[in-house]
Formats: sequence, structure tokens, C-alpha cells
Amino acid sequence: MANDWSDYPQQTPLLIVISGPSGVGKDTVLQRMKERRMPFHFVVTATTRPPRPGEVHGRDYFFISRDEFAEMIEKDELFEWAHVYNDYKGIPKQQVREALASGRDVIMRLDVQGAATVRRLAPEAVLIFLSPGSEAELVRRLSERKTETPEGLKLRIATARREMERMNEFDYCVVNRDMALEATVDQIIAIIAAEHSRVHPRRVKL
Amino acid sequence: MANDWSDYPQQTPLLIVISGPSGVGKDTVLQRMKERRMPFHFVVTATTRPPRPGEVHGRDYFFISRDEFAEMIEKDELFEWAHVYNDYKGIPKQQVREALASGRDVIMRLDVQGAATVRRLAPEAVLIFLSPGSEAELVRRLSERKTETPEGLKLRIATARREMERMNEFDYCVVNRDMALEATVDQIIAIIAAEHSRVHPRRVKL
Repeated sequence: MANDWSDYPQQTPLLIVISGPSGVGKDTVLQRMKERRMPFHFVVTATTRPPRPGEVHGRDYFFISRDEFAEMIEKDELFEWAHVYNDYKGIPKQQVREALASGRDVIMRLDVQGAATVRRLAPEAVLIFLSPGSEAELVRRLSERKTETPEGLKLRIATARREMERMNEFDYCVVNRDMALEATVDQIIAIIAAEHSRVHPRRVKL
Repeated sequence: MANDWSDYPQQTPLLIVISGPSGVGKDTVLQRMKERRMPFHFVVTATTRPPRPGEVHGRDYFFISRDEFAEMIEKDELFEWAHVYNDYKGIPKQQVREALASGRDVIMRLDVQGAATVRRLAPEAVLIFLSPGSEAELVRRLSERKTETPEGLKLRIATARREMERMNEFDYCVVNRDMALEATVDQIIAIIAAEHSRVHPRRVKL
């Protein structure tokens, strides 16, 4: 009889991707997860876009120059990167490796295209798709971002429609309904708890 | 764009098997789940063994005669059945079909052998293995059952050891630690919630 009966929930660190269409509320959901002080490592993305008001370097993003970004690509130091809305963003490989090595679950927020890339590079990643409750909710949320030009808004809506169609590439779908942020976070926590109860854990190799 | 965005958690009814070695506390865990009044259908097993003190026909088991049991086998009315400790027990097919058709998740308590049979007959079932925190806990729990003869106890311990080795045939493992019943039930509820968040649900065909 093995002596490791009590090793459940198992401690294999997970790579968890939170994705979904533009405007679904990925940032808000992650913010709430951080506030609950769960022992996760939240990946900090590197980006070439300028900070929005209130965003802090090293906490919200690593704001780096295009030259620095190009150098990271050249040295293969990015786990995943993309060219989005005329800017670049990517995830430093070393950060993910170190967090997993320390035994913590790694949470990444990615757009749908980025999530597909992670699936290819790390098939054992847990892919969670955030969905809006309805198309009307999504359009309204996108419209409320005062940072958008009318043309930018149209592009985001068109992109979001296309992104919704890729839900079937994901493992889980969680509906992020208006006024139900806590329920969304609870559901994500339940998914992570269930994944830690798997007899055959999803062990990510990078 | 589809109009069914809000269909998550998806409503496909699940077939959930709670199993584990003799003495791990399957009955206690199911009893606590019933007390929490979740909208599950708890399968009532048919058995030929006599009722223990306090057990009620139709609630804890359907206590039937060997003749009745033989007839159910002959008419192929049993989903799963087994010969255990000189008695027979089995699950009426019609009960499971009706519960799933009504849209409820079906919860079955089965021994490890029975769970393996369900995996074969319904590969989409969700198999949860309850594990004791340690071998000492398991032996103590088995010893506390005053209904056992010394020989019966030895047999149960030997069986439990062999059953522990079959954990790897299950989807999930939940450790049912002494004094931590609520945590066990919470973990099972999290697994069920996660399964309802799957983009590709486990749809059981019977």
C-alpha cells in the first residue's frame, strides 16, 4: 500500500489560461482573484503599448519599448507573443518557468488567439473561456470604454464576434454575467480545485 | 453569433460515481450530500442483504429477495450488479434513465469493482475515488464497525488494500480525512461544478 494517500488535492502546479472575447471582463475577473489572495502566480505580460491611467509597471504590465520587445523575440525569451491593435504583447518564459518551479499555479490572461498558441506549446494547460451573458452585454461593455474611437469600437466588436466562435477550442466555459463577478470567480476556483483532484494531473512541460 | 451564450454552467445531466475502499466513509459522505439538499438524484441500490438497524427500505436500499434479484438480472433490468460478501446488490437501470431524463445529475455510490463496470458501460461517467487519509485511519474505521466478525474484518482490510491500488482507474481522487467531512463534500461539489463548465460535456448514453 502506498504511503502517499494524503497527497490529494495533488500539488502539481497548473498552467491556467483565462481568456475570452475582448470586453468580456478578463481584467476585472483577474483583479478580483488577486484580491481574494489565493496562492497563485499571476503572469505579468510585457507590452509595447503605453500605460493607461492608473496602470503600474511591473504590476499590471511590463511596459517596454519596441526595441526591447524585438530583442526578447530574437533571444526566444517569450512564451507567447502577439501583435494586437498596432502594439506587441508577450509573456516572458522565464517568469512562467520560475513560478511553476516554485510550486504555484500560474494564471495567465490571454486573448483567444494567445490561448490557442498556449494550447499548442503546452497541451496540458487548463484553458478557461470567459463568455458574456449575451451579445448585448458584450457590446455595451465595449462601448463603455471611453478609450476607444468609434472605428476602434467597431473593430473590437467584429473581433469579439469571431472570438466567440472559438469557444470550442477551450476546456471550460464560465459565463461572466453582469453583477455576478463573485459567481464567476467561484466557478473558476471550483475548476482549479477539480483539476487538483485529478488522479492523472495535467503536468505542464515548458 | 449563437444565442446560447448563457447556457453555462451547461445542463447536461452527469452520471457521478462515488467510490473508494470499504471503510473510507462513502455512506457518510453521501448522507452529508443529501443533507445539503443539492438537486441530485441519489441512486437507491437494490440488495439481498438484510437491513441493518435504522436502514429504511426505499431510502437506504431496496431490500429484495434473491428470487426478485435473479428475475431482475434475467430481464436485464440492472445497470450494474455484484456479488459481495455472500449477498447481491445492483442498480435498477430504469431508475438511472429516468433521473437523467429529468435533467438531474445522478449520484451513485459503488464499490471499486462496480465503478470499473460503470466505466465500461458508460465511459462518460465521472468517477470519483474517495481515499482515506492514511492506512491507519482506514483500519480503525473498519474496526469500529461492530457488525463485523474478526474474520469479516480481516477480509475487509485485505479487500481495501487491493481496492486502493485501483485508484488510477478513476478521474478524481478526494481524500476523506477524519474530522473533515465538510471539506470532502466541498471538493466533490467543486468537481461537479467544474464538470458542468466543460465546453464539451460528458454526455452519458445508456
